[in-house]
Amino acid sequence: MSQIQQGMAMLIAAFHKYSGKEGDKNTLTKGELKELLTAELGDIFGVRGTAKLFHKLTS
Amino acid sequence: MSQIQQGMAMLIAAFHKYSGKEGDKNTLTKGELKELLTAELGDIFGVRGTAKLFHKLTS
Repeated sequence: MSQIQQGMAMLIAAFHKYSGKEGDKNTLTKGELKELLTAELGDIFGVRGTAKLFHKLTS
Repeated sequence: MSQIQQGMAMLIAAFHKYSGKEGDKNTLTKGELKELLTAELGDIFGVRGTAKLFHKLTS
């Protein structure tokens, strides 16, 4: 598998790690999105940045 | 680094592997794009599919 294919596979697997938790396994509920952002990007964006990003993506 | 951060880092590194070959190191020339598509996605899209994708992205 090429580097780009590996990177894409990792993003897709990470998405499904959260999307599979409740409801439709192929979409993120708002709760799943919040969990994904917090766990996967929280150390970069911080609590306020993550909340802002969540708001942008859901409004 | 979280799984999403790792996936993103892999995609960015792969992009730079090609964008650094000629001209501006942060953008892809048409030649670099063709090389990226062929080497990274050629086994999935095939020769014709890759050519089609290249055409779509550059026209």
